[in-house]
Amino acid sequence: MPDLRPVFFVIGLMAAAMGMLMFVPMVVDLLYNDRSWQAFAISGVIVTLVGGTLATATYTPRPDLRARGAFVLTVFSWIVLAVLAALPFLLDPVRLSFTDALFEATSGITTTGATILTGLDDMPKGILLWRAMLQWMGGIGIIVTAMAILPMLGVGGMQLFRLESSDVGEKILPRAQSIAITIAFIYLVLTLACTMAYMGTGMTGFDAVAHAMTTIATGGYSTSDASMGGFMDDGADMVGSLFMLLGALPFGVYMLMVRRGQFGAPFRDPQVRAFLFTIAALSLLVLVALITSGAQDSELGLFRSLRLSVFNTISIITGTGYATADYMQWGPLAVGAFFFFMFIGGCAGSTACSIKIFRYQVALEALRAYLFRMPRPHAIAPMRYGGRPLPDAIVYSVLGYFFLFFVTVAVIASLLGALGLDPVTAWSGAGSAVANVGPGLGDIIGPSGTYQSLPNMAKWLLMTGMIVGRLEIVTALVVLTPSFWRA
Amino acid sequence: MPDLRPVFFVIGLMAAAMGMLMFVPMVVDLLYNDRSWQAFAISGVIVTLVGGTLATATYTPRPDLRARGAFVLTVFSWIVLAVLAALPFLLDPVRLSFTDALFEATSGITTTGATILTGLDDMPKGILLWRAMLQWMGGIGIIVTAMAILPMLGVGGMQLFRLESSDVGEKILPRAQSIAITIAFIYLVLTLACTMAYMGTGMTGFDAVAHAMTTIATGGYSTSDASMGGFMDDGADMVGSLFMLLGALPFGVYMLMVRRGQFGAPFRDPQVRAFLFTIAALSLLVLVALITSGAQDSELGLFRSLRLSVFNTISIITGTGYATADYMQWGPLAVGAFFFFMFIGGCAGSTACSIKIFRYQVALEALRAYLFRMPRPHAIAPMRYGGRPLPDAIVYSVLGYFFLFFVTVAVIASLLGALGLDPVTAWSGAGSAVANVGPGLGDIIGPSGTYQSLPNMAKWLLMTGMIVGRLEIVTALVVLTPSFWRA
Repeated sequence: MPDLRPVFFVIGLMAAAMGMLMFVPMVVDLLYNDRSWQAFAISGVIVTLVGGTLATATYTPRPDLRARGAFVLTVFSWIVLAVLAALPFLLDPVRLSFTDALFEATSGITTTGATILTGLDDMPKGILLWRAMLQWMGGIGIIVTAMAILPMLGVGGMQLFRLESSDVGEKILPRAQSIAITIAFIYLVLTLACTMAYMGTGMTGFDAVAHAMTTIATGGYSTSDASMGGFMDDGADMVGSLFMLLGALPFGVYMLMVRRGQFGAPFRDPQVRAFLFTIAALSLLVLVALITSGAQDSELGLFRSLRLSVFNTISIITGTGYATADYMQWGPLAVGAFFFFMFIGGCAGSTACSIKIFRYQVALEALRAYLFRMPRPHAIAPMRYGGRPLPDAIVYSVLGYFFLFFVTVAVIASLLGALGLDPVTAWSGAGSAVANVGPGLGDIIGPSGTYQSLPNMAKWLLMTGMIVGRLEIVTALVVLTPSFWRA
Repeated sequence: MPDLRPVFFVIGLMAAAMGMLMFVPMVVDLLYNDRSWQAFAISGVIVTLVGGTLATATYTPRPDLRARGAFVLTVFSWIVLAVLAALPFLLDPVRLSFTDALFEATSGITTTGATILTGLDDMPKGILLWRAMLQWMGGIGIIVTAMAILPMLGVGGMQLFRLESSDVGEKILPRAQSIAITIAFIYLVLTLACTMAYMGTGMTGFDAVAHAMTTIATGGYSTSDASMGGFMDDGADMVGSLFMLLGALPFGVYMLMVRRGQFGAPFRDPQVRAFLFTIAALSLLVLVALITSGAQDSELGLFRSLRLSVFNTISIITGTGYATADYMQWGPLAVGAFFFFMFIGGCAGSTACSIKIFRYQVALEALRAYLFRMPRPHAIAPMRYGGRPLPDAIVYSVLGYFFLFFVTVAVIASLLGALGLDPVTAWSGAGSAVANVGPGLGDIIGPSGTYQSLPNMAKWLLMTGMIVGRLEIVTALVVLTPSFWRA
């Protein structure tokens, strides 16, 4: 049994911080004279008290964690924070059911962006802001987890991104803290830049802030039922495309730029290069599909078609999940492509989710070496990543990750199918949840639908998928093995 | 460039043998006074001459192959034999188009069992027999390949099944020959036993022989449009269930029984035990789904429901593809289950295809060790298979195999989707082809449909999937890499 005191101490601190942040939407509601300020006042007090009490009860002077404690912290923190974040949705004026409130909060904090709400345009501003803040907090949470914790734990090949000075299983918390401060600064600067850019296209300050938060976090919650489509006439989609990309780049690269002035870092990073190339190639594919589909959108001229293709491709690949059009109308090639885009993901160490570019690079390199060696049993075929040798252990973790990812999607999709969902909804919903994308495919949960009408059991399955996906699957599985909890 | 003379010599011999076997359906047609005898006479002469000429031109006194030659032989032989086997379908009286003839032959020789023919019950007996013979020949071909060739080449973890005396890359052909003789004997005995059992249920001699050939080969071609459903009233489904199972057991185990009298061998083999357990558990799942679905079949009483569940479960898991009912009517749980059953497969070294039980065992063992080691970076967690240590290299091959398998299915499914096929047809068709099962899901290619109405391009994609699946994917990919053909 690992020592759980520091784990609960850290979770308590995070909960208290989240509770205090609930007073932000309260203030906004009061300013806009909106109805939901009381919900945030009550929730804020409760959550701050719960978090504060937990932290006080488990106070640890210089908290630190070994590997097992870090696993427990990572898994429990997402679950506990999702539950606490759901509180305002339970109260007046939105009064969601418990399942729906938890679904909206889980989808928010995991930066998935699947929603059960409609009528967003008339929602209290506080509720809209809270949804955006959840994704924004989730986004920085995942960057810090991916940079400071997962590489130490060797989850799914993430050990590839251990920084030089790191030491297995030691000093996890101080390290996370030091990274978090620099990252928070970069994250804030990017969010501010994005806000200003959105305001430049004519968005109101409120819409700009809310969208900037969910853009940088590659989250995808919008303040309008039309998603980003409602702001496209003024060119907000171009701002969105740029900042979704920036949110999906590895924040380690930004750290090199800020701390060491290495401004060429992005262009030397093998992940970034492959990611940008993938985005360019697949946007082009979607453009061709859109133009040849004969869909209504294709009559909009080349420039607008290009913007639609680029935006929606980036939105799905990065796992953001904004939509500017109902791409279900773009023909079978485009719809099929969008299904696969869910499984690509951004760069490791960013806010983006899913399988991620580097795992494809590692798998392809392993495949190349394997196929070379097969007919020449005695030949040597060293594997490399970004010019450096690629250890077998990492290839092994990465291939295992693919296996687990698809098994997870398949299990959830089958259970959804057994609940009676049609195959397109079941598979695209499961994929979208585990990859933390947001919308699925088809009429129900596609880019112009919502998850509202699904049975409660399906919502619980999807929430499980979101959390497990956000935890890079392995982290969740480790904690579920009985041997983990023994001595 | 590997030495291709012995490769073409062996292919020539196989082609000549196949040409001579075409005179069997010719004789049967003459006996039944059926119209297609001329097609077989002409095809038999042509194929025997082509094969004989090829073998003569490349005559090698003591042919043998190194690793690369064995790869080329494995890949080319399936393609060349499929093309030659299609010849009778092009001629009177069935006169299929080139694409359809090649589809039927490829589906036959790979033991897939997807068909484009309807009106089977009124077909010339020679055509029905030829289809059965193709599967029967394909079945023994794959056993010999899996036992004598793939373990030497280290394809997809098959090196786990190297026999003790084996030596990497040496003496492949003499070894294959020695294995082939014993296996052919066992295969013939099983086929005869199956024929007699079918006749015991009241099948005609002709139907019994044709079904025995496609049962042992886990192929799935029938002599009736109703598939095995047409013979169920007399209990032929129970014979079929038993012999599909026997065809999907590892023939190496039979060799131990025959050569060394080890009659307990099947029960000590970890593959066999896991396979039988899987069949039992999943048949039960299907039974529950069938009974609770409220489908018409469920009014048939427990015994008949059990027979339906067991037969169709075995049929899909082993990749046979007979149907005794339209299980599309058994509710979403059953339909979803049948989709996954395609990806299970039988035992390595049998006529069954797909991913195969041992790969799941290896992946689960690797997962167990991985999850154990993750929170304890310095712990040692040895992996075992069947009581023996499991080398990393095999785990690596197996995980890579899963990756390639699903990428292959996904690529083919997406291309089918891009051709305009609905998602259920596209995905189940791609899965069914690569796993060499036969029927897909949905109204078009489901258990009561055929592949006839698909566009030609879709048929070519599915044929590619069948060949690539039959070659355990890796074998096909290796031959496609440019580096394979260099020096």
